[in-house]
Amino acid sequence: MADIVEPKRARGGRTQRREARSGSQAIHRPYIVRGIPTYDILSDESLTRIEATADRILAEIGIELRDDIPTMELYRKAGAEVTAQSDRVWRVKFPPGMLREILKTAPPVFTQHARNPAANVLIGGKNVVFAPSYGSPFVMDLDKGRRYGTIEDFRNFVKLSQASPWLHHSGGTVCEPTDVPVNKRHLDMVYAHLRYSDRGFLGSITAPERAADSIEMARVVFGAEFVDQNCVIMGNFNTTSPLVIDGVTASGIRTYAAANQGSIHLPFLLGGAVAPLTIAGMVAQGLAESMASCAIAQLTRPGAPTILASFFSSMSLRTGSPTFGTPEPAIGSLAMGQLARRLNMPLRCAGNFATSKLPDGQAMQQSMMSMMSAIQGGANYVLHSAGFLDGLLSMSYEKHVLDTDMCGALHAYMDGMAVDDDALAFEALAELGPGQHLFSTQHTLRHYETAYWDSEINDDRPFETWSEQGGLDSAQRANQRWKKTLAEFEAPPMDVATDDALKDFMARKKAAMPDMWY
Amino acid sequence: MADIVEPKRARGGRTQRREARSGSQAIHRPYIVRGIPTYDILSDESLTRIEATADRILAEIGIELRDDIPTMELYRKAGAEVTAQSDRVWRVKFPPGMLREILKTAPPVFTQHARNPAANVLIGGKNVVFAPSYGSPFVMDLDKGRRYGTIEDFRNFVKLSQASPWLHHSGGTVCEPTDVPVNKRHLDMVYAHLRYSDRGFLGSITAPERAADSIEMARVVFGAEFVDQNCVIMGNFNTTSPLVIDGVTASGIRTYAAANQGSIHLPFLLGGAVAPLTIAGMVAQGLAESMASCAIAQLTRPGAPTILASFFSSMSLRTGSPTFGTPEPAIGSLAMGQLARRLNMPLRCAGNFATSKLPDGQAMQQSMMSMMSAIQGGANYVLHSAGFLDGLLSMSYEKHVLDTDMCGALHAYMDGMAVDDDALAFEALAELGPGQHLFSTQHTLRHYETAYWDSEINDDRPFETWSEQGGLDSAQRANQRWKKTLAEFEAPPMDVATDDALKDFMARKKAAMPDMWY
Repeated sequence: MADIVEPKRARGGRTQRREARSGSQAIHRPYIVRGIPTYDILSDESLTRIEATADRILAEIGIELRDDIPTMELYRKAGAEVTAQSDRVWRVKFPPGMLREILKTAPPVFTQHARNPAANVLIGGKNVVFAPSYGSPFVMDLDKGRRYGTIEDFRNFVKLSQASPWLHHSGGTVCEPTDVPVNKRHLDMVYAHLRYSDRGFLGSITAPERAADSIEMARVVFGAEFVDQNCVIMGNFNTTSPLVIDGVTASGIRTYAAANQGSIHLPFLLGGAVAPLTIAGMVAQGLAESMASCAIAQLTRPGAPTILASFFSSMSLRTGSPTFGTPEPAIGSLAMGQLARRLNMPLRCAGNFATSKLPDGQAMQQSMMSMMSAIQGGANYVLHSAGFLDGLLSMSYEKHVLDTDMCGALHAYMDGMAVDDDALAFEALAELGPGQHLFSTQHTLRHYETAYWDSEINDDRPFETWSEQGGLDSAQRANQRWKKTLAEFEAPPMDVATDDALKDFMARKKAAMPDMWY
Repeated sequence: MADIVEPKRARGGRTQRREARSGSQAIHRPYIVRGIPTYDILSDESLTRIEATADRILAEIGIELRDDIPTMELYRKAGAEVTAQSDRVWRVKFPPGMLREILKTAPPVFTQHARNPAANVLIGGKNVVFAPSYGSPFVMDLDKGRRYGTIEDFRNFVKLSQASPWLHHSGGTVCEPTDVPVNKRHLDMVYAHLRYSDRGFLGSITAPERAADSIEMARVVFGAEFVDQNCVIMGNFNTTSPLVIDGVTASGIRTYAAANQGSIHLPFLLGGAVAPLTIAGMVAQGLAESMASCAIAQLTRPGAPTILASFFSSMSLRTGSPTFGTPEPAIGSLAMGQLARRLNMPLRCAGNFATSKLPDGQAMQQSMMSMMSAIQGGANYVLHSAGFLDGLLSMSYEKHVLDTDMCGALHAYMDGMAVDDDALAFEALAELGPGQHLFSTQHTLRHYETAYWDSEINDDRPFETWSEQGGLDSAQRANQRWKKTLAEFEAPPMDVATDDALKDFMARKKAAMPDMWY
């Protein structure tokens, strides 16, 4: 971990925030260092019971592994009890404690390097990294409504994220570019992240060769030797809940880990469908699945960057539809944070979840409930921090704007409260005494510019001013904002040779295979 | 405290929630008993420094008391150093520790009785009571926009609150009824609370005789003897920050306390204007002011129900306007919760604050940030739980609907997570094993109806269904909802003799004085 240097920051990061405010985008905070404690809602006894249940699930029910013989062998050699159910499907049972032992080689904190070193992120410990939403087939905006995402939308969202000082990472499949063949879109996606962002990003995981291509493109930019020693790309891998790991996932994990790149291990748990609908059971299952998946990375290359993860969702009693941004999953996420700290591993958890189909009051109420659980629970990597609508089916241009602004507010929230003589401000009150406004005190003048988070999208003006200037709601203001941001966007510089090498790699790969659309 | 009986409730209150869901409004939970711990963000050392600063403010700067000789004498007899600045203005300085000693007689928890005993609330300890917003001169809805509030609006909001199972208290000045003379509107307001709600409420504080009238009307309903022994009404008293208590406030506090009724002691702190703009300083000042105000109640009648309170707000750097629902005040509210517990007193704090002028995304994002600080910080009485918009200048019909629904979600949130064999649900996973959906397991069937909070206003249906049925946003749905609720509203029963006595009291009072409009 000797390569990790904490970025220089003013206490509370307010200096940097002011600079970001004034448009100096390059000087954003590369990630947040928490200034507030985590919100620990469960007792040690309850946590121990959840862990014991996870261990029992792993030991007595086990995981079903499909289609990946090398992973089966890794598990077996490590001491798991492997029973073949067919020549391509195995039940894998783990003696209690075995996975915890294996996961001890996972680094508690690691750096994901960005092509701009000032944008490197520390993942783990007290550090918090915000990345945009991931995986929506649709996009939506107020003008054109909902439609399938395209590679142009994809690039737009990469640009919008890069332009926000309140995100720290470019994310991965920010929307599905459905106008590009399925077997080639990973090339365009990785290129967009590398070209239009200078932050860290996620590569493809939909097939082992696409994972390999993603890492190869990172090598073009970072150099093969650097990549072997440093994390420059990560893959986000979903288990097939309940309790299944498929072959594409297992081999993808091995591909990233073998290259010493990061992997995120996510059970996507919809209570009542692929998990119990009681929260404690959902958390226990999520812990079991994520540990089993993380172990593939550690068994492939001990010490490879590996992120424990959880995604909890509830369902509507009336329709059976999944619901997002609801209270029970928020409580589950807080508990998951405690469990991750007991494992001493970085955590991906929650995000700006919403079921609403518009960037309206419902959307932002749901988002805030979910996002609060991420930051209070101690999540280190928060995917889905911006754009999430429609139960993850749609990436919204306006919600991306509203969410990134909320992420800014959460920077100030996580700075917490300074308690020193200056902040306690006895002199500020003593200067003029009872009944006198503090506008003109030395203390007020000294702190005026930096005391409070300053939203760029909320309207805090008096009603009359707001009304005279059009009386727009926040979604309408966000609509104006993303268009302005895209119109003014300038890609971060990239040397021509690197850009050409990336384009050449893509051209060769695309020419080598016919288009596939499924 | 022998009269306090914890209401019977199923674990987690889910039985009652289901009943409320099915329309049986009478069986709502009378208040919330927290199932999750508080979120303690400050160390003991930091808390001690804030308390020491509050003590120093009180000892070295002191409070300016205006226009109330009896309070001046109460303070002096109790040991404060009182210096006359004129014949009606005194500077009052409190030796360190003096106020803490006086406040030891304040009950840590007390019951406010409602005219329906099933709606009695416990205030203090682990109990949380939600009440609607308070004090807006304007009202707004999507149809008619913003206009001055009337007594009809006032009655409407009392009815909307009564109809919600997720509020526990009728509040006070739910909007200013500006069409009723200033010196008579307290009569109509108190009558509306007593007639259209059967929950606890707040009386008038704008003049000592109006406070007395409010209490007298409560005596009509509850009986004079009962009122002398039990809290049936409370007054919400604001200090005049910084560090002033005016005569109307001081005499009003004495009036409520002498009658053994409850009083809330609220510094309304706008950072940079009437308080330092650093959070720690704002919290220290708020603690000092609220303690000095609370002491008036305890010195008047030791043991009178008394609530410590805080209201923190930031300001816009660009306009100097106050801003609500922002991160710094939320952090301050969490700290205030810790300080109240160290004083062993009930706390009123935060609420569904928003600066937005519409029930839009901004409004609900700001509300949720603020409301989370109330419930996580351990506030016991949360005024402003529903309807707050426009920086408290407007009470919104639609936001009242959205907020009360959010309050329902917060019931589920505060229930926390059961961790027992049933909730851990090992058998649910074992029943069908890996790869099998849990829809049909015994565990799912058993928990299906009660596992998740079920919003009545959020739209959780698939996009296509939502779109076919009109594609409304949450504010539009809320607009439909409040109209339906008012159309279907039935006032809780009241015997004719009591109603007549109240009307007679009002008529006599109104006839005895000319209308005043300021």
